[in-house]
Amino acid sequence: MSIKPLDDRVVVKYVEKDDGEEKTKGGIVLPDTAKKDEKPQQAEIVAVGRNIAPEGEEAEVAVGDTVVFDKYAGTKVEIDSEEYIILSMDDVLAVID
Amino acid sequence: MSIKPLDDRVVVKYVEKDDGEEKTKGGIVLPDTAKKDEKPQQAEIVAVGRNIAPEGEEAEVAVGDTVVFDKYAGTKVEIDSEEYIILSMDDVLAVID
Amino acid sequence: MSIKPLDDRVVVKYVEKDDGEEKTKGGIVLPDTAKKDEKPQQAEIVAVGRNIAPEGEEAEVAVGDTVVFDKYAGTKVEIDSEEYIILSMDDVLAVID
Amino acid sequence: MSIKPLDDRVVVKYVEKDDGEEKTKGGIVLPDTAKKDEKPQQAEIVAVGRNIAPEGEEAEVAVGDTVVFDKYAGTKVEIDSEEYIILSMDDVLAVID
Amino acid sequence: MSIKPLDDRVVVKYVEKDDGEEKTKGGIVLPDTAKKDEKPQQAEIVAVGRNIAPEGEEAEVAVGDTVVFDKYAGTKVEIDSEEYIILSMDDVLAVID
Amino acid sequence: MSIKPLDDRVVVKYVEKDDGEEKTKGGIVLPDTAKKDEKPQQAEIVAVGRNIAPEGEEAEVAVGDTVVFDKYAGTKVEIDSEEYIILSMDDVLAVID
Amino acid sequence: MSIKPLDDRVVVKYVEKDDGEEKTKGGIVLPDTAKKDEKPQQAEIVAVGRNIAPEGEEAEVAVGDTVVFDKYAGTKVEIDSEEYIILSMDDVLAVID
Repeated sequence: MSIKPLDDRVVVKYVEKDDGEEKTKGGIVLPDTAKKDEKPQQAEIVAVGRNIAPEGEEAEVAVGDTVVFDKYAGTKVEIDSEEYIILSMDDVLAVID
Repeated sequence: MSIKPLDDRVVVKYVEKDDGEEKTKGGIVLPDTAKKDEKPQQAEIVAVGRNIAPEGEEAEVAVGDTVVFDKYAGTKVEIDSEEYIILSMDDVLAVID
Repeated sequence: MSIKPLDDRVVVKYVEKDDGEEKTKGGIVLPDTAKKDEKPQQAEIVAVGRNIAPEGEEAEVAVGDTVVFDKYAGTKVEIDSEEYIILSMDDVLAVID
Repeated sequence: MSIKPLDDRVVVKYVEKDDGEEKTKGGIVLPDTAKKDEKPQQAEIVAVGRNIAPEGEEAEVAVGDTVVFDKYAGTKVEIDSEEYIILSMDDVLAVID
Repeated sequence: MSIKPLDDRVVVKYVEKDDGEEKTKGGIVLPDTAKKDEKPQQAEIVAVGRNIAPEGEEAEVAVGDTVVFDKYAGTKVEIDSEEYIILSMDDVLAVID
Repeated sequence: MSIKPLDDRVVVKYVEKDDGEEKTKGGIVLPDTAKKDEKPQQAEIVAVGRNIAPEGEEAEVAVGDTVVFDKYAGTKVEIDSEEYIILSMDDVLAVID
Repeated sequence: MSIKPLDDRVVVKYVEKDDGEEKTKGGIVLPDTAKKDEKPQQAEIVAVGRNIAPEGEEAEVAVGDTVVFDKYAGTKVEIDSEEYIILSMDDVLAVID
């Protein structure tokens, strides 16, 4: 089963961070449970709509890119037990390399 | 009796999920009653208006497609005891294959 | 006395349902009083303004059509003891055949 | 003293209803005091601005017409002890013949 | 010291009414103190900006005109102990002759 | 250190009034402390952006002008212990000569 | 790891002020803790999107510039333990030299 975003939308999916345990500024290691209210704002693009680039410009994002987005933007959707977020390109703020 | 959406609108109808009982992430089987507050965001298109495609572009959806939409969007209407939702194409976010 | 809607507006009037008593899903007959808070969203067009079709397109509705509209839209007006609703075409969502 | 509305505005004035006492649906005669909170939505046009018709179209209203308007629209103004309402044409919904 | 409104703005100033004491509808003379919460909506234009007329149209108001305006519109400003209101032409509703 | 406003913005700075003590209408001298909640709405322009005039029109303000602005508009910024307000030209209402 | 803002956005980063201790107007030295609720409104641009200049105009900002922005604007993002703010050019008000 696959999801195809319409118009200027992209579908993103959170990726697992594999950089081990995270520390606070003071060096205290945060277990995962302590951070669960924190909404991540970065995710990987898994599908793009046909109008993600303004007329006459090249697209600035592609499938596989890690993007930063407005945390109050987008619509969550669950497909085959995976959670995705559908975003308008207007809510995609930057690409992380 | 049939419903014909105007302009850029589509009419969708919830379809019965026939994938048996659903489980929570932890594997607990959820009886239907426990989920009844959850608004589904996927439905099947049963009719489309004449302006669902922007000028000069082909339509991205058709009758029979399963689409994802913004759960606060649309207007519910009951016809012949069937519940339908009338949506503007702007509120249709993606197609599920 | 007659009412002539301006610009892109239509005037609609609720029609009496003559399909006998209505039942709930479980088969219980609902007397009229139990449903009086329920706002109907379907009505018949009794007059149309001169600009109900976008420039260069044909009108999608006509006098006599039964239409579905957004229940929070429109302005009620009482003329000769009859209640009418004046709606902008933007709030007319679909036609019922 | 006269009032000249600007741009796309019209000035309306409530007219006395001379159709005698009004009755409720059940036939009960309503004395005037029982209805004084009810805002009338019909009034007569007494002056029109120079831009009441969209570019290239004829005006749909004229001085003397009885019009229906959105009851929350317009600005009340009192001139020589007479109360008038200044409305934008956008808030004039229909003409009553 | 003088005030020059920019763009489509006008500056207005309340003028003293010299028509003696005012009466209520029932004929009761209202002393000034009883009316001090009532915001006047009429004032005289004392200065006009350079863009008070839409492109290609003549201005509908001029210095010296008495105008009616939306009572919640405009910005009060005090210059040399005189109170003025700066209004956009959009908030000027009518001219009183 | 200097501040250069972007696009259609101007930077203004409050100027000291040197007209001695101010009096209320009744002639009572107001010490400065009694007025400190009152936000001034007049200030001097100290810098202008490159787009302060609409396309094809001359600028209506220049550095050195005293302008009146909407008291809820603008963004305060402190540079070298001086307080400035950055305003869009849309919020600059008039020039005082 | 680097961040590339999209469209008309810029990424800014707070810079350490090295002008020693700050004093209040009355000359009282403020320790850092007393000011920690104060949101800074100045930061340095570290990356710019491809559309930061309006069509046909030159960009008014560049990487390395110190800019003033609306303190309620922008989206915070943390990358490699550094905090950045992604702003639309509309929220960048001025450049500080």
